[in-house]
Amino acid sequence: MTGQYKLTYFTIRGLAEQTRLLLNDHGIPFEDHQVERADWPKIKPTMQFGQVPCLHDVDVQIVQSGAIMRHLARKHDLYGENDCDRTYLDMFFDGIQDLHSKYVQMIYREYEEKKDDFVKNTLPEELAKFEKLLKSKKDGKGFILGDKISFVDYTLYEELDILQILDANCLNAFPALKAYHERMNIRPNLQDYLKHRELAKLPVNANGKQ
Amino acid sequence: MTGQYKLTYFTIRGLAEQTRLLLNDHGIPFEDHQVERADWPKIKPTMQFGQVPCLHDVDVQIVQSGAIMRHLARKHDLYGENDCDRTYLDMFFDGIQDLHSKYVQMIYREYEEKKDDFVKNTLPEELAKFEKLLKSKKDGKGFILGDKISFVDYTLYEELDILQILDANCLNAFPALKAYHERMNIRPNLQDYLKHRELAKLPVNANGKQ
Ligand SMILES: N[C@@H](CCC(=O)N[C@@H](CS)C(=O)NCC(=O)O)C(=O)O
Ligand SMILES: N[C@@H](CCC(=O)N[C@@H](CS)C(=O)NCC(=O)O)C(=O)O
Repeated sequence: MTGQYKLTYFTIRGLAEQTRLLLNDHGIPFEDHQVERADWPKIKPTMQFGQVPCLHDVDVQIVQSGAIMRHLARKHDLYGENDCDRTYLDMFFDGIQDLHSKYVQMIYREYEEKKDDFVKNTLPEELAKFEKLLKSKKDGKGFILGDKISFVDYTLYEELDILQILDANCLNAFPALKAYHERMNIRPNLQDYLKHRELAKLPVNANGKQ
Repeated sequence: MTGQYKLTYFTIRGLAEQTRLLLNDHGIPFEDHQVERADWPKIKPTMQFGQVPCLHDVDVQIVQSGAIMRHLARKHDLYGENDCDRTYLDMFFDGIQDLHSKYVQMIYREYEEKKDDFVKNTLPEELAKFEKLLKSKKDGKGFILGDKISFVDYTLYEELDILQILDANCLNAFPALKAYHERMNIRPNLQDYLKHRELAKLPVNANGKQ
């Protein structure tokens, strides 16, 4: 039973992983359609911007990772309670995207030259901003919004997860982010999925760097 | 009378211009707070991610250009009629952001080396995607959503505008985009604002390139 959703992406975590986490954590069935590079040229022209991730919701084809996350958030009550929450989540999400762009730039274009500098200088500066934001609700002891989980929690969790693969100690100076990652990590549905993912040995990035 | 909104950004069009256009077109009063570079070090630490644009809505401080646009869209009925529209707008907006990232990269890092290649190769390929999307509603003769104007119309209009500054002919092969830009351009409130902006000689980008 795969349900109404089909998520198309490459055989990596990349920009689709936040969506896989969200769907798995909420027990929402979906087809996890992982495309091999050899099949990509056939699929690329069918995508609005020639790229994936892509979510099919029955016959509606949605591309852009942010649009996919917001779509699911609206449908599954993961976009806060009111417009004030929604604006806060949009801001937080786009902030993570900015950090992720820097990460991707380093991973794909300058891993050898810049990894150390990224870990030593960029990360502490960037993570300090998220530590502060997280602590602004429920003293950082809940979700991004405080009491209620939202779509951005999966984006943040995944970002913290891959950053710790890059540098296992990067959260040590940020106790709220570190405890947050640990709390998300032990959610039962996520645990099940993470075990499954480990068996599948799904790489973080397409060039094998992490 | 400046109303409940204050928009803080540098003395350029950059990432704030779409918001200035939206507010002016709808006759929504706001304070257009343009910060000189010399004053920036004082302001930077007050911003959630150390950056602008920033919109103050009374006492709520919103950063991230996308979060600002979506916030105004929700408040002023510029986010379509239903969730299907909203997902489509999110997708379109993020698609423009991807193109804009390429533009910014070229403008700020490789103008001399890459401008010609960007105009000759990147632009036609990118604009073809938006031409096709625009034509998918009302045969491209209306707004992005067809009948109803939305926040993304200001983002698209501004993008097409700055791309034509880069290359006056870039829309010639894309009749729907070209006619769309002309239609937006003559909206009376926008015309008033554009005249005002011309007098103020507001640069497109911070390094004077365009
Ligand atoms: N802004 C887009 C970026 C999508 C993107 O960069 N997709 C890459 C994979 S991560 C892709 O499809 N690359 C293959 C190609 O461009 O041919 C999003 O957030 O979804
Ligand atoms: N993703 C952010 C990017 C904001 C951004 O890059 N802001 C630049 C100006 S365009 C800035 O504030 N630069 C000054 C600095 O970083 O100190 C957005 O869309 O608002």
